Amino acid sequence: MEHLDLLISATWVLPIEPHAQVLAEHAVAITQGRILAVLPTAEALLRFAPAQHVERPGHVLLPGLVNVHTSAATSLLRGAGLGSGLAGEAARIERLERRWIDAEYVRDGTELALADMLGSGTTCFADVHPYPEVVAQCVSQARMRACIGLPVDEIATAWAASADEALDKGLRLRDEYRADPLISTSLAPRGALRDAMLARLQRIADELELPVVISLAEAVGFSLQRLERLGMLTPLLIAAHLTELAEEELELASERGISIAHCVQAHLGLRMGLCPVAELLANGMNVAIGSGPPAVGSSLDLFAQLRMAALLANGLAGPATAQLSAHDWLKMATLNGARALGLEHEIGSLQAGKWADLCCVDLRRVHSQPLYDPATQLLLASSRDQVSDVWVAGRALLSQGRLTGLDDADLQARAQRWCQRIGSAG
Amino acid sequence: MEHLDLLISATWVLPIEPHAQVLAEHAVAITQGRILAVLPTAEALLRFAPAQHVERPGHVLLPGLVNVHTSAATSLLRGAGLGSGLAGEAARIERLERRWIDAEYVRDGTELALADMLGSGTTCFADVHPYPEVVAQCVSQARMRACIGLPVDEIATAWAASADEALDKGLRLRDEYRADPLISTSLAPRGALRDAMLARLQRIADELELPVVISLAEAVGFSLQRLERLGMLTPLLIAAHLTELAEEELELASERGISIAHCVQAHLGLRMGLCPVAELLANGMNVAIGSGPPAVGSSLDLFAQLRMAALLANGLAGPATAQLSAHDWLKMATLNGARALGLEHEIGSLQAGKWADLCCVDLRRVHSQPLYDPATQLLLASSRDQVSDVWVAGRALLSQGRLTGLDDADLQARAQRWCQRIGSAG
Repeated sequence: MEHLDLLISATWVLPIEPHAQVLAEHAVAITQGRILAVLPTAEALLRFAPAQHVERPGHVLLPGLVNVHTSAATSLLRGAGLGSGLAGEAARIERLERRWIDAEYVRDGTELALADMLGSGTTCFADVHPYPEVVAQCVSQARMRACIGLPVDEIATAWAASADEALDKGLRLRDEYRADPLISTSLAPRGALRDAMLARLQRIADELELPVVISLAEAVGFSLQRLERLGMLTPLLIAAHLTELAEEELELASERGISIAHCVQAHLGLRMGLCPVAELLANGMNVAIGSGPPAVGSSLDLFAQLRMAALLANGLAGPATAQLSAHDWLKMATLNGARALGLEHEIGSLQAGKWADLCCVDLRRVHSQPLYDPATQLLLASSRDQVSDVWVAGRALLSQGRLTGLDDADLQARAQRWCQRIGSAG
Repeated sequence: MEHLDLLISATWVLPIEPHAQVLAEHAVAITQGRILAVLPTAEALLRFAPAQHVERPGHVLLPGLVNVHTSAATSLLRGAGLGSGLAGEAARIERLERRWIDAEYVRDGTELALADMLGSGTTCFADVHPYPEVVAQCVSQARMRACIGLPVDEIATAWAASADEALDKGLRLRDEYRADPLISTSLAPRGALRDAMLARLQRIADELELPVVISLAEAVGFSLQRLERLGMLTPLLIAAHLTELAEEELELASERGISIAHCVQAHLGLRMGLCPVAELLANGMNVAIGSGPPAVGSSLDLFAQLRMAALLANGLAGPATAQLSAHDWLKMATLNGARALGLEHEIGSLQAGKWADLCCVDLRRVHSQPLYDPATQLLLASSRDQVSDVWVAGRALLSQGRLTGLDDADLQARAQRWCQRIGSAG
């Protein structure tokens, strides 16, 4: 019998690769944080002597979800960032952040968001926010996985007085975590950067093979044409909020092989229109799922975001979208996310050799029954409390619904204190 | 000290009437199944000697939700009613139902749905499905509240061979439950009924003061013009699936004061377009929330439906919608629902004299924090597992997350048996 650190068996396993498979009564064998094999449970029990065997009858086991675009720390402004009615107001959020931001704010907001994400099945997220070193520290302590965006902005923030200072601080951070298997970094140009700085950032990104995350919301002053001119349309570009797209832009983006962060709730919250998911996929583009910032009323529950994206695409878009199956959507939230972050060889599917980043969902609920197809029920008829377990690199961060590291009550108490301070200041 | 059957105190109470109030540290005093008073908890404890005091710190207490349009028994086809991709296919659902429907199917499907609804905060629903006597029996046994639609169709079903037989059976059912405070009835003309039968149904409805539920999905052959000609546009008409609406239709519907069942997930699932909620409300119409049938991939979780409706209306509609607050949406799912069913004097808000139909939601979760505004967090940032308690006429049907009457495991086992039978038959 082969030694094994951990065997996880479930009634259904969705490996994502190969595509659209539902493996009944299968198990994932894990050693040293990585997947050794995915195989029938009966076979696994004959072959391996696992130090720990986690059995999850009635559950579905799949790769942990990858959230390719958020600003975790803005969770402290959840509900405060909304204007009249329920629309997110970018100006209000910016005003509040400018007033309150410091290292403590970023730590409390980020940790609140980590608990939120782990509790709803996300194992890896891409963040963009000032004080990235605080975000990285929180993630590292929680032993979660993240791609930390290094924000570069001409506008002075409490964190950096200039684009040069931001870049300098960011690159030092990148060096610090270079050997950390859980933390990767990306470059995140923001606001009204000049061409010279953008070109410089792209040279650095090319050299260091870093992803570049850019919000293409029109107000921010980026356009595909400008990015093309600056050589920034590469397979490591993550374009967030790309909702309106002319035919020639679609062709260009598709030729260059950029990734798209589809953030459906943020697009609705900020009235950006809808992302033409089916058309993007039909053109061979890599569409991944992001939550957007919680401050705009957007949820960090990526299953909920995925469900909304699927129902919307189905209901409002053309016939091509109707052909997208539950498996197609689940792939967008896992493997496509990994690919967007340049991590497709490390995470995003249950393939031997990849990190054991997994989530497990209990389908034994009246609202998830009957189970004609576990993938469809998982997508359309489950809720965040059904996420029972989450592992990152083989380590349980959520176990039977409980966070193993973060202190739920303490996080809530800290959030309440911020709420009192920020809320009473108006 | 006055005697009281039950006192429920919570950190926040949303009475719905008066509009947009958030009452901190309040309690609802209940006796003989009805609300006696809503008052500060401190005051209640001085005034009343309750037989039972349920304390819910960190929770929000509000009227139970009212689902004005569903076909509960189709929950047995959840996931089986979807075609290629994830679109609901009406023809497929009809084919499956014709093949499998009988009293046992309706009982198992309805009870599964009751558990689903109670577990997500719904205390009253309006149903339309063959075998309404079975639906009524299930509801009555569960001690939930429902408005049972009496389906009348020219097409023969296993339940009734003709419209005359359906009407006859339906009216007998209505007589049987006349004195039951939990069960009311409506007339539910379906399919291709002739004008003479529709006019006859409307005469009966007028005489007995029954609501009439009609699906206005174009395929079904009803139109506002036809209903107007037949005198069917009344304040007791519930128009489901009214998504496309010409200016003159809007005026007509508004003048007549009909109610609208907004079923956002069903509209998306069946590709019916979007309901112009803001325009309807601006024209003084009564917009209520329905789930639609679970068979089309639609959730019975009315909070989830409400959230999706709010995010969509906000994100895709005109500026008028932006002004709809969390309170406006919560009212649609409670008081407006009660009004649609002709029950606005009995349920739908926490007013003295009304039945004590309530639900309680625990906001002590990392993803519901911080709480700048409990109503907004309830609408945008809660999930079904946070529904802790549900009372119908003062009786606890869900207590600390557990159903008090229905047997969760048994319901799931029965659903699984149907899944095996229906699924293996293809």
